[in-house]
Amino acid sequence: MVKESMQVTPWEVSGDLDYEKLVRDFGTSLIDDKLKKRIEKCHPLLRRGIYFSHRDFDKWLAAYDKKQRVSVITGRGPSEKMHLGHLVPFLVAKSLQDEFNCEVFIPISDDEKFFVKENLSYEDSLKYARDNIIDIIALGFKQGKTFIFEDFVYTDVYKYAARVAKRINYSTAKSAFGLKPENNIGWSFYPAMQAAHILFPQFYRGKHNVVVPVGIDQDPFIRLTRDISEHKDFNFIKPAALHAKFIPSLHGGGKMSASDTGNSVIYLSDSAEDVKKKINKYAFSGGKDTVEEHRKHGGNPDVDVSFQYLKVFFEPSDAKLKKIEDDYRKGKLLTGELKKILIDKINAFLKEHQANRKKAEKMLDKYLLK
Amino acid sequence: MVKESMQVTPWEVSGDLDYEKLVRDFGTSLIDDKLKKRIEKCHPLLRRGIYFSHRDFDKWLAAYDKKQRVSVITGRGPSEKMHLGHLVPFLVAKSLQDEFNCEVFIPISDDEKFFVKENLSYEDSLKYARDNIIDIIALGFKQGKTFIFEDFVYTDVYKYAARVAKRINYSTAKSAFGLKPENNIGWSFYPAMQAAHILFPQFYRGKHNVVVPVGIDQDPFIRLTRDISEHKDFNFIKPAALHAKFIPSLHGGGKMSASDTGNSVIYLSDSAEDVKKKINKYAFSGGKDTVEEHRKHGGNPDVDVSFQYLKVFFEPSDAKLKKIEDDYRKGKLLTGELKKILIDKINAFLKEHQANRKKAEKMLDKYLLK
Repeated sequence: MVKESMQVTPWEVSGDLDYEKLVRDFGTSLIDDKLKKRIEKCHPLLRRGIYFSHRDFDKWLAAYDKKQRVSVITGRGPSEKMHLGHLVPFLVAKSLQDEFNCEVFIPISDDEKFFVKENLSYEDSLKYARDNIIDIIALGFKQGKTFIFEDFVYTDVYKYAARVAKRINYSTAKSAFGLKPENNIGWSFYPAMQAAHILFPQFYRGKHNVVVPVGIDQDPFIRLTRDISEHKDFNFIKPAALHAKFIPSLHGGGKMSASDTGNSVIYLSDSAEDVKKKINKYAFSGGKDTVEEHRKHGGNPDVDVSFQYLKVFFEPSDAKLKKIEDDYRKGKLLTGELKKILIDKINAFLKEHQANRKKAEKMLDKYLLK
Repeated sequence: MVKESMQVTPWEVSGDLDYEKLVRDFGTSLIDDKLKKRIEKCHPLLRRGIYFSHRDFDKWLAAYDKKQRVSVITGRGPSEKMHLGHLVPFLVAKSLQDEFNCEVFIPISDDEKFFVKENLSYEDSLKYARDNIIDIIALGFKQGKTFIFEDFVYTDVYKYAARVAKRINYSTAKSAFGLKPENNIGWSFYPAMQAAHILFPQFYRGKHNVVVPVGIDQDPFIRLTRDISEHKDFNFIKPAALHAKFIPSLHGGGKMSASDTGNSVIYLSDSAEDVKKKINKYAFSGGKDTVEEHRKHGGNPDVDVSFQYLKVFFEPSDAKLKKIEDDYRKGKLLTGELKKILIDKINAFLKEHQANRKKAEKMLDKYLLK
């Protein structure tokens, strides 16, 4: 089989993904055994290899070990209701907060989505931002150690973005972000806003080690920010990064993206019935076509979306996961049974999340920067 | 004599200026006798022809006559201490406020100067902004009807700039502002901030007629703003404009500009001694080379900078100005005597201004938007 050549940029991910090649091409580092040991109690996303590459995360840990301030930043561009895939960096940020007791900064770039989506109104971008913030708070971040801010509400961030903007010229931004002359000038400016988000913990708290959990395709933005962070205007520490592989949509394959909607994703607002239907109908299966064949030859958990979701999101117990994997591989566990395990896990999670959302709505003040 | 071909863009003014040609080229309207009648009690800058062209100022007056809300907006990019030339739009704004009892909005674009001047630090841009604001307040704008805001302090303005930015694409901004790929992306964004300033009174107070006193070379920015003001995102009235000719520096000729500093301008902070020295030594004279010749042939007030400053800034009485002009033309008034009149007028103005500055420092809160 001829391999389709791999394209990984912030605005295109296609072809057969070769993550080790990406690490070489981007000049990042694989998360090695020594680092893995430091995150072995963290969320499955971290300890089961979805986060596979980094920049300077070893330095971040070294600073933590020296009892210096460390923090995490990860944000969201709100243009729709959130689905499971959107949770990835937040689950990781929360896990790092729990493990290292550090502050987490969460910029909500309502401006980005507003600039990029022709038909998204200003009012709707505010509405989605507020909705998404409630989902994020519902994940259980620590009060007093978690700072959420929206660009269109906490407009102080413009002061920082302007200082960053002075150090990024249009041609640099154009190549990092794929800007076109017909794009609006909010879009041209946004690279500065994004870099200001990544540098925000240092603007806000002074120079310290910050880590950004991010999809590997977003690394060019990290590089752009690292390139300016030590400029004498700022004198900051280059932000560290933790890079994630792509999580498949229900249909399997490449990257779960903003264009995956409806039946290819599980929304945080989905009902138990929705989840059951979507997983049973759409979750790509690594099982065989008939029960007989499955019993005889076994399934393939490596491509089975239900198994993958259990692995990265929903089954924290390594022993239980191992048993599910073995049983599935041997054909002891049928696809329908595997799906049932996932459906129950997702629905338990969503039930709790949806209840937490109701509480979160009343706690906005405790998290939003003013 | 061969005429040097005229160049008038926001970033270049050169050649022999032909203001009537500019009005034709830009598609603006001359201020006709009917409009002149409406501003005959206003500041000399308005009634003696420095403001010579407009867009829709007739509509602004019609709205005023119908007792509808009207307002004035004019701003400043602070990158140095202010000189007389910088006062032009503010004297006009104040005069319109006095005559039409309207609100005046004054954006201070510390961000613009910060983006454009490589060596201007963030801290210095704030410092100049504060210094300039005190000069502006000292001019005597009405409290409660005058709203001053700095982009780096009243960052709410980013919300409006973003909405404007969505409707200006990079290629449009590039041609209106002469942007280059090597310019930083703050500079690329600034056209949106400037348009947001011009539209600010309508964002802040709702749709109404607004006029912008501005140098004729700045008209492309007015056009850019007018082009988007009626977009359904905003549904505003196209801002009107009043266009000024260029005020000469002490050396005479073209435009008093940011590059004119030191001895070619009178700073608002100059001492009486500074003023005396600068006017006597540098103010371009329309007088003859010797007293004898001057007495015999007379001087030329049309090119005499001292006379022009009396005309546009300092001699409100038409009768007194006429006598000075006649006496100078006839050779009855010598250059030294003419300069003495101007020096005394400037020093009286500066003495009062400098005293008003001290009071203004304590009144910042009454003018600054929060």
